[in-house]
Amino acid sequence: MYRSRRDDPVTDREKLANDRFNCSERERAVFESGIKLATIYHQFVGTPVNLNTVEGLEKTISKAIEVQPYVESAKVSIPRSFFPEGSDRYSYVSLTGNMIDAVVVIRLGNTKVTAEMRYDEALQYPLMYISSIE
Amino acid sequence: MYRSRRDDPVTDREKLANDRFNCSERERAVFESGIKLATIYHQFVGTPVNLNTVEGLEKTISKAIEVQPYVESAKVSIPRSFFPEGSDRYSYVSLTGNMIDAVVVIRLGNTKVTAEMRYDEALQYPLMYISSIE
Amino acid sequence: MYRSRRDDPVTDREKLANDRFNCSERERAVFESGIKLATIYHQFVGTPVNLNTVEGLEKTISKAIEVQPYVESAKVSIPRSFFPEGSDRYSYVSLTGNMIDAVVVIRLGNTKVTAEMRYDEALQYPLMYISSIE
Amino acid sequence: MYRSRRDDPVTDREKLANDRFNCSERERAVFESGIKLATIYHQFVGTPVNLNTVEGLEKTISKAIEVQPYVESAKVSIPRSFFPEGSDRYSYVSLTGNMIDAVVVIRLGNTKVTAEMRYDEALQYPLMYISSIE
Repeated sequence: MYRSRRDDPVTDREKLANDRFNCSERERAVFESGIKLATIYHQFVGTPVNLNTVEGLEKTISKAIEVQPYVESAKVSIPRSFFPEGSDRYSYVSLTGNMIDAVVVIRLGNTKVTAEMRYDEALQYPLMYISSIE
Repeated sequence: MYRSRRDDPVTDREKLANDRFNCSERERAVFESGIKLATIYHQFVGTPVNLNTVEGLEKTISKAIEVQPYVESAKVSIPRSFFPEGSDRYSYVSLTGNMIDAVVVIRLGNTKVTAEMRYDEALQYPLMYISSIE
Repeated sequence: MYRSRRDDPVTDREKLANDRFNCSERERAVFESGIKLATIYHQFVGTPVNLNTVEGLEKTISKAIEVQPYVESAKVSIPRSFFPEGSDRYSYVSLTGNMIDAVVVIRLGNTKVTAEMRYDEALQYPLMYISSIE
Repeated sequence: MYRSRRDDPVTDREKLANDRFNCSERERAVFESGIKLATIYHQFVGTPVNLNTVEGLEKTISKAIEVQPYVESAKVSIPRSFFPEGSDRYSYVSLTGNMIDAVVVIRLGNTKVTAEMRYDEALQYPLMYISSIE
């Protein structure tokens, strides 16, 4: 990346951050992908949501992840099957980990990591895993 | 409370909920307003946000509160002055309680309660308080 | 309220807080009880916990509530029946609202409010309610 | 890894989880370390805490991380300098990311990864980074 001036604050802060890491670029990209999936889970689990608000919540979670360093994209979807059809005052749900489908793409230098979170029926567990490193 | 049909699930669930309370309608409305303000604080503090995503986050928080029982409206605003002007990868912030301005209106029967949360300069504390009961 | 010295920081801050409220002492105590129950829910739902760590988590949640203003006591219990007996790496759970039993006692002036949260089988909902005001 | 019986539930679930990953053991260990640091941050930021309860909170956070897969140890410390000396009702703080010092050690097969989170004065940011991979 070209730096026009020595005091460019952007580049300097990124360089400082880089200096803290004792690993390869590839490993750092993998590390960042883990951070992002756990952020989705632990920040938003518990959020009240219903069929009318779920689309907005999906977008807000995606954008909250995309403002973080090195995120190329974050797609979050919450299957509509989790929502009750009733319409009384108690017919909303609290977001749980089992309801979250997420795909996060990290780009750091020449490395692209795709990591995913989704409820695994066989494991009975919302698994976070790495689906590709390029 | 009038119930038109024995199997009405809405009325039955609301009646069940009502039966758990040992207080007046007015007190219950006040109780609900406290629940909603703390939900805003403890669910969303920590969310990554920047100048481009703050409007969406405000709306999502408002809607998450409005799906809960007895909420007439919830307005959340996050002053733009909290955001750094820089544009490097680290120029976003994590939402803190001090950044949240919220006004929640609860309507329960004939009672309307307005409760607010905002950073109090004199107290140096994000105070939650009741501003009116009608 | 009597203030012994003009510069007493405790009394001054509490008086400032009191001045923000447009309601009775009793209503304020009710409001605080709602805040505390929602804090338990929205702060701690999602926490990884197993049979070995649940007792410590219960205590930590109780104490986190007890440091807040006007809390006389906060008792939190998480029934052990929610925990799987297995012992592999995936045999822990994430705390959900349905797992939380809480009793919070607020004392504010001459008012004592007891509020509770617990999963209501009939409602199929973790209900927060006021059980007594004295 | 030796499996004594085909129906061993532990080994089977771990094998299922392993099959989801498209990366090396080393990369997976790095991924898990990122998950754990973000869990600390996004689960616990916002927790009310004071000088009397901070030690218990540190332990509870450590244990919440240690129940998760592949964690050898998690040490969390919250410097006491962040706490005000006052003693009125408002003299507690809400945990922020800047207050958290954490060291998480992941062991997965033959790989040991140490990852840390701490406020970086130069970056003005609570940085999560990998300090060693063995």
